[in-house]
Amino acid sequence: MKDLYSMLHPKSIAIIGASAKNGSVGNELIKRSLEAKFKGKIYAVNPKNSEIEGVPCYPTVLEIPQIVDVAIIAVPAVAVFDVVKQCQQAQIKNVVIISSGFKEVGGEGKELEAQITNFANENNMNVIGPNCLGIINTADDVCLNATFAPLQPTKGNIGFATQSGALASGIINILPTLNIGLAQMVSLGNQCQIDALDVMEMWENDAHVQQILMYLESIPDTKRFREVASRISKKKPILILKSGRSARGAAASVSHTGSLAGDDTTATGLFATSGVIRELYLRDLFNTAQVFEKCDIPSGNQLAIVTNAGGPGILATDTANDYGIPLATLTDATKSKLREVLPSQASVNNPVDVIASATAEQYCDAVKILLGAKEVDILLVIYLYITGKNDIAITQYLETLKKKYPQKPIVCVYMTTPDFEDEARAEIPNWDIPTFRFMVDALHSIKRLIERKEYLEKDNQTTPTLKVNKEKAKQILENAKQQGINQLTTMQSLQIFDAYGLPLPKFGIAQSLKDAKDIANQISYPVVLKLSSKTVTHKSDIGGVITNIKSEEELGFWWNRLVDRLNKANLVESLDGIVVMQQVSGANRELVAGVVEKNGVHQMMFGLGGIFVEALHEVTFRPCPLTIQDAQSLINGTKAKNIMGFIRGGMATDLKVVQETLLRLSQLVTDFPEIKEIDANPLMIDDKGRLLVVDARIVL
Amino acid sequence: MKDLYSMLHPKSIAIIGASAKNGSVGNELIKRSLEAKFKGKIYAVNPKNSEIEGVPCYPTVLEIPQIVDVAIIAVPAVAVFDVVKQCQQAQIKNVVIISSGFKEVGGEGKELEAQITNFANENNMNVIGPNCLGIINTADDVCLNATFAPLQPTKGNIGFATQSGALASGIINILPTLNIGLAQMVSLGNQCQIDALDVMEMWENDAHVQQILMYLESIPDTKRFREVASRISKKKPILILKSGRSARGAAASVSHTGSLAGDDTTATGLFATSGVIRELYLRDLFNTAQVFEKCDIPSGNQLAIVTNAGGPGILATDTANDYGIPLATLTDATKSKLREVLPSQASVNNPVDVIASATAEQYCDAVKILLGAKEVDILLVIYLYITGKNDIAITQYLETLKKKYPQKPIVCVYMTTPDFEDEARAEIPNWDIPTFRFMVDALHSIKRLIERKEYLEKDNQTTPTLKVNKEKAKQILENAKQQGINQLTTMQSLQIFDAYGLPLPKFGIAQSLKDAKDIANQISYPVVLKLSSKTVTHKSDIGGVITNIKSEEELGFWWNRLVDRLNKANLVESLDGIVVMQQVSGANRELVAGVVEKNGVHQMMFGLGGIFVEALHEVTFRPCPLTIQDAQSLINGTKAKNIMGFIRGGMATDLKVVQETLLRLSQLVTDFPEIKEIDANPLMIDDKGRLLVVDARIVL
Repeated sequence: MKDLYSMLHPKSIAIIGASAKNGSVGNELIKRSLEAKFKGKIYAVNPKNSEIEGVPCYPTVLEIPQIVDVAIIAVPAVAVFDVVKQCQQAQIKNVVIISSGFKEVGGEGKELEAQITNFANENNMNVIGPNCLGIINTADDVCLNATFAPLQPTKGNIGFATQSGALASGIINILPTLNIGLAQMVSLGNQCQIDALDVMEMWENDAHVQQILMYLESIPDTKRFREVASRISKKKPILILKSGRSARGAAASVSHTGSLAGDDTTATGLFATSGVIRELYLRDLFNTAQVFEKCDIPSGNQLAIVTNAGGPGILATDTANDYGIPLATLTDATKSKLREVLPSQASVNNPVDVIASATAEQYCDAVKILLGAKEVDILLVIYLYITGKNDIAITQYLETLKKKYPQKPIVCVYMTTPDFEDEARAEIPNWDIPTFRFMVDALHSIKRLIERKEYLEKDNQTTPTLKVNKEKAKQILENAKQQGINQLTTMQSLQIFDAYGLPLPKFGIAQSLKDAKDIANQISYPVVLKLSSKTVTHKSDIGGVITNIKSEEELGFWWNRLVDRLNKANLVESLDGIVVMQQVSGANRELVAGVVEKNGVHQMMFGLGGIFVEALHEVTFRPCPLTIQDAQSLINGTKAKNIMGFIRGGMATDLKVVQETLLRLSQLVTDFPEIKEIDANPLMIDDKGRLLVVDARIVL
Repeated sequence: MKDLYSMLHPKSIAIIGASAKNGSVGNELIKRSLEAKFKGKIYAVNPKNSEIEGVPCYPTVLEIPQIVDVAIIAVPAVAVFDVVKQCQQAQIKNVVIISSGFKEVGGEGKELEAQITNFANENNMNVIGPNCLGIINTADDVCLNATFAPLQPTKGNIGFATQSGALASGIINILPTLNIGLAQMVSLGNQCQIDALDVMEMWENDAHVQQILMYLESIPDTKRFREVASRISKKKPILILKSGRSARGAAASVSHTGSLAGDDTTATGLFATSGVIRELYLRDLFNTAQVFEKCDIPSGNQLAIVTNAGGPGILATDTANDYGIPLATLTDATKSKLREVLPSQASVNNPVDVIASATAEQYCDAVKILLGAKEVDILLVIYLYITGKNDIAITQYLETLKKKYPQKPIVCVYMTTPDFEDEARAEIPNWDIPTFRFMVDALHSIKRLIERKEYLEKDNQTTPTLKVNKEKAKQILENAKQQGINQLTTMQSLQIFDAYGLPLPKFGIAQSLKDAKDIANQISYPVVLKLSSKTVTHKSDIGGVITNIKSEEELGFWWNRLVDRLNKANLVESLDGIVVMQQVSGANRELVAGVVEKNGVHQMMFGLGGIFVEALHEVTFRPCPLTIQDAQSLINGTKAKNIMGFIRGGMATDLKVVQETLLRLSQLVTDFPEIKEIDANPLMIDDKGRLLVVDARIVL
């Protein structure tokens, strides 16, 4: 873990490339740091000036009369390396390279960046950037704004790291209207050295940063991400907006796991297992941040809605339902308390409609009763300013109640006059209740609070070690490798699955019709014949799978026909044998499970199988090794869950068996990382609810 | 159609129940109408005053020295009927009843409302309300605000009708921040007489109202709604937010069409066939309204994105992809024009990234080139205010370009400083470009523009008359009725389907094993036996369906077994015979179609069949009679479309056959409205792509 404390808490900074020219980056940097009222010492560096904007200016960092904590570099790209070397001579440990013209332009720029990075690494220097907006720390004892964003940020508890500097600037512009503020900001730039995960770790134990927001365009190291984010997400919320979702990989023309594992689907799995809250849109990112900034995590998920108008109450109920947020059932005691204080026409069911004619006092009474009710965990306050100006009075009262019930989040939707916000800020010194204009934004954020509560309540994620015959699997794999086989034969794949305890129908391998008959008699008819070949990778394509063979006569007929086909196709030599497998009868539901390696990490896929893999895309991914929670979230991640329960013509399957199947597959690829791809497809559920892996495919 | 012109364009109004008491509804009404600078004459009515707020006051309407156009009634509920009677005596044609205490409180209130309604109907009076906020018309020659909402609305082109008065008030509060304005507003209240459709018709030919927005909690008359909305939606956009979506009907435990046809799913179908744009959230309603207020409908759907920052460009691309909005492929000519004007590091592919250092002039040049490009239909302008203040200059230039390219919508996303809006309003007199803070809101609205374009391009919706044997179907139905049958036997249902030309496997009905053998020989094995009974409504439940009978021996065996079962269950008497049907082989895809009558309208359902009806809920509804476009939208409405094309192991089905099947079912229920429910389930597609209705069920 890099020590970046002095980078974000400097006692002195040097702005190299500082400029007296209005509107230039070097001038904006000086102005911003002055406006921020930086608590430490600012030095400008520019050979042409002796002072800039009142700040003493030196020809190079070497002339500065002290060792500064951070150098902010805003000189042309070609000059940057020399400046970094001077910083090293001046014993400056931290540099922020604002300048652009590096990796992002390719060619020489890329090379230059690599040289600077090597130099910094060799000299134990920390480098943020290049090609970035700078860094911010709004803490009272720091007041650092080393950026050229035009405005000073609102102060708050968010640590914001971004791969787009312009976005940081845009966001600072709109922070006041979003009701949120920054504790620290790091514009990551090209991340030549300090990357998003270093910044995340820096914020792990920083009490000023109570939630971590990130805009990312890529995830450099999946394994490290999982380790770092999983740890930190237990301590504070991590909200990530990752772009590039629409960049699609190769068209998914076949349903192998590999073809479905896009960069973005696997990122979704990575975020999920790491406890990261993924938002798809900036709007949602900031809405969620507002609620996390101002609310504690609730102890339950039961929502009460109070409104002074019926229509919005119905709309809020619709929206809560869309988000799967349960509405608290109010007890008779609560209802009678409400009835005592509210107008006779008010509705005391949830949503509680105090009606438009209710006074501010009545409204406040209702809020108080609901917050005091045991059955209520979260309160959505809807207030439409109709007649009489009560919004400020109500907000003031809510602030009081918030202190009394800190674990019960209060979220407001106000359709009030435009001057409300200014008035509220003026009249309520510590206005600290999340406030939205629209129900859907409020409820989206409430949903995130509930998800966070559920995440924190989960036991620590565990990856169990299940009993398997690892030695046998190893032998089969060694054997295959010696034969130079890349895709294991059906028989080898099935045997490995068997060794790892996956639920398979009875099967055996036959080298002759006599073998086949013996096996069939042992496992009983009907049976299936499956070609097991060292060279044929898609056995169905050459008619290598024959199902529903009901008798010895049929077996003879089909055996001969299959051998004929193989002779004609010159495939006998590469034959490993023919698998005789019990026909799964009454199978009425098809799932799919599989694993594929992407960028060094095995990704487990699970979802609806059969033609629905392609038609419906109801599959989700999680990185291996799977924890029990990962397996559960794969099971619940798609509509596949709807066919695993009781359906017409089929009993419910045991979800523990499904979970164990996924965990066993995960253990297999964890034990043998040389496995590149596995398909357990189809994964059938029969009418009795039994789960059976009907075919196996393993690729090294 | 009601003549409501004078209601919304009065030359004089009387406010009955006007009050001098600050904060009372009767006082607010007077104040609002004065503040609005009503162009006509205002009279107050209250026996206690001679003037209120400078307005002359009379004891009753009878004393007013002229016949007023509209009476606004705000007296206690018990006094309202007398006041209405006085209005009738005073020859007042239009009344708006603000007072509450009527149907919404039930009992006597409900009765009172019915009496008033009858009286008004008998005397040809128009009544808006009761229990409403009032009415507004912002036209320069009217300036009517007969509401007690606290603020005056921003002026615009929206006609807004709402079943929630408080919502209207809340919306007026926030109109300025939404960048939209009202032409007229009608608070519908209890709709005792004038309802949402009357208001819609009133706005049909009113040039001031260029889009119709409605908040509805119910749809009183489905048939009239379809007729009126279909007609008007061709002329101007109708945007509806309908609440009560989460109110669920009976739990859908079986997959009959009836159990899946909830009030809200059928409302979705009604809106779709009527060309109504349905929004689920207020936020989206207003975002869409902003774009419709300020943009013409584009002539194509190709979007170009211009940005001064890379990250937001990627985010916009992701979001456009989420909404299925195609990004224009820029021609080489366009790209080279862009290269000429932009900095060398700019990206001239779509999204066009001018980069942060581009000047306002360069940004404007890029915008101009993109709007001039033939391949671009719509432009999304993303501007993050970074260094140098250009937002106003760019906006001014966009206004100029807008006039030059009126058919190319320009939509802006500005992450700029909070003072931008005020400055833009001050410096740009006719600021008229839709402006959002977040990409997702802009792109949601752009999607609606594209949908509107596609809707207006469609041919007029037509319901074809297909050749069917109506006489035969009539005979079968008559016959069933005479037998007192409620649910037709399988045979009867199949025969009616046959008469209406639905794609059925070969079948016949047998009264004896000999019959059955003859039929089976004729249609060839394998066959299916299906019980056709006058009393058994779920034939599968008693084992009344036996599939895959491959030979005469098997037929004999199963026939006897079925007859045994029927004997044991005492079901022989009600037997209509046993259907012998060709076994559909190679069927690998299951769809479902059905019709159910809800509130006098037949609703057609179509989607994924089999266990997926319940597990995936991929079904949609449209009201009958279906137009060709309705049938197409049913086909494309769910993921069912993904299994109708070519899949592994199955050829594409002919969508024309699917379409015709739906149209024939629609024609059947239109010809025989006594049919309450039809299930064509399953509807199989075999590996050759043939569509076959495998079972039929008709309920009267």
